[in-house]
Amino acid sequence: MPRPFDPGYGEEPFATLVREYPLEDVYPPSHFRVEWGPIFHRGRLDGSARVLVIGQDPAHHESIVRRILVGEAGRRLQGFLAKLGITRSYVLVNTFLYSVYGTADRQAAKNPQLVAYRNRWLDALLVGTRVEAVIALGTFASDAWSAWASTPSGQSLHVAFAHVTHPTQPESSSKSPAKVAEATKALLQNWNAGLQALAPAVAHPDAPRPLALYGDTWADGDRTPIPEFDFPAGLPSWMHANDGWARRAGADELAKRRNLTITVPKGIGA
Amino acid sequence: MPRPFDPGYGEEPFATLVREYPLEDVYPPSHFRVEWGPIFHRGRLDGSARVLVIGQDPAHHESIVRRILVGEAGRRLQGFLAKLGITRSYVLVNTFLYSVYGTADRQAAKNPQLVAYRNRWLDALLVGTRVEAVIALGTFASDAWSAWASTPSGQSLHVAFAHVTHPTQPESSSKSPAKVAEATKALLQNWNAGLQALAPAVAHPDAPRPLALYGDTWADGDRTPIPEFDFPAGLPSWMHANDGWARRAGADELAKRRNLTITVPKGIGA
Repeated sequence: MPRPFDPGYGEEPFATLVREYPLEDVYPPSHFRVEWGPIFHRGRLDGSARVLVIGQDPAHHESIVRRILVGEAGRRLQGFLAKLGITRSYVLVNTFLYSVYGTADRQAAKNPQLVAYRNRWLDALLVGTRVEAVIALGTFASDAWSAWASTPSGQSLHVAFAHVTHPTQPESSSKSPAKVAEATKALLQNWNAGLQALAPAVAHPDAPRPLALYGDTWADGDRTPIPEFDFPAGLPSWMHANDGWARRAGADELAKRRNLTITVPKGIGA
Repeated sequence: MPRPFDPGYGEEPFATLVREYPLEDVYPPSHFRVEWGPIFHRGRLDGSARVLVIGQDPAHHESIVRRILVGEAGRRLQGFLAKLGITRSYVLVNTFLYSVYGTADRQAAKNPQLVAYRNRWLDALLVGTRVEAVIALGTFASDAWSAWASTPSGQSLHVAFAHVTHPTQPESSSKSPAKVAEATKALLQNWNAGLQALAPAVAHPDAPRPLALYGDTWADGDRTPIPEFDFPAGLPSWMHANDGWARRAGADELAKRRNLTITVPKGIGA
């Protein structure tokens, strides 16, 4: 059985983009985990993308897979895209190349070089391409979109856009299970509005289907695995089937920052 | 400053090869760490390679970098290639796609499907290419070469070949520092013989230089960092500057087998 994979950054303009990523002078280590390197994207770079998604920043699983949105947030987003009939023709980039340390910093986010580099990616993915809809996950991503939309290229492009709640906002903003449930319900209502705004614009879905909205909580099929064809060649299947296999372990904050501990899930291998 | 990277497997015949790698039925989990996935190569896949190296199997750093020979063995090999004037035009593959668990098994190594898949790689890298010399690191690699050399493609190709001692054989075969020093001296004598056999065949070095043989122990410059252009895009620089940043941690053999613990070296990041 063939094992599909993502070919990565061999083609221009992406080969040049990934050679020219900004370093610590643009992403200060006090706000970003620059020591784990930049993580650029997930999805189609061959011009076939119909939907562009802007996320926020990569987390720890992403540091190993070297693709963004490969954990729980990614699986929820995958379900959202599937409701639009988009199962392959998507491309995802983040607001920030590096993982945010602590809370995302509004001032750091405004660094002109940070914005300019991201805009080069957005130019490459949007100008003269087939993209029919853009989704921003959360406020920083929405600001990233606005920054690009105000450039000359952005002003001349007309594309459907929706700013939706970040997929793991319920867990990151709520302390109790009841609060998470409440925030999840609000997120799903917000996502339903996003689906209704975007669905008419997605004229070339991979798998056309009637629009089925979310209920008050996650249902079967709302969270779907990250496709193997989004991962670099040869990564083991447990890395895309689920997350939870990587964590930052350590006795204190600094030790945790320097560590990634990977554990193969039980039932795999010998 | 541009950060070069290895573009990987986007081009044929390698795109097809990395989609069709053998699984547990060919590499039994009792002998191979199949749970970490296959690791295919390091170096040039664009036809520019002048030297082909066959190694044995990937270790733990390789599971993260997803390229072979990126640790101490790789740095020693890099120095050997530099003595031949080869600083970029090389390609490295292993005898085994997966990391060996315990001791390499002669019987498992003879699996016809295992050999046939490896021979497809050797066909792709040797038939009709510019390779002028082949190096086998250790006995299993030498057997892998013999298996290919006896195929019709192998029989019709005439290329310089040397079987040399595996770069970390001194450490893996010796218990005391004195024994390591003795084994290192023997390895370097063996490598000098290999250099003398191969140097005349390497007609198109990247950086021509008079052949300088090894002394009785490692000297300055004999072990050189893995070039950034051999690594996938965006990997942090400490991953190619040195090894020692990954280890298999755990209370017992099974726990160690399931674990990889990565620690950013001191002095990097915040």
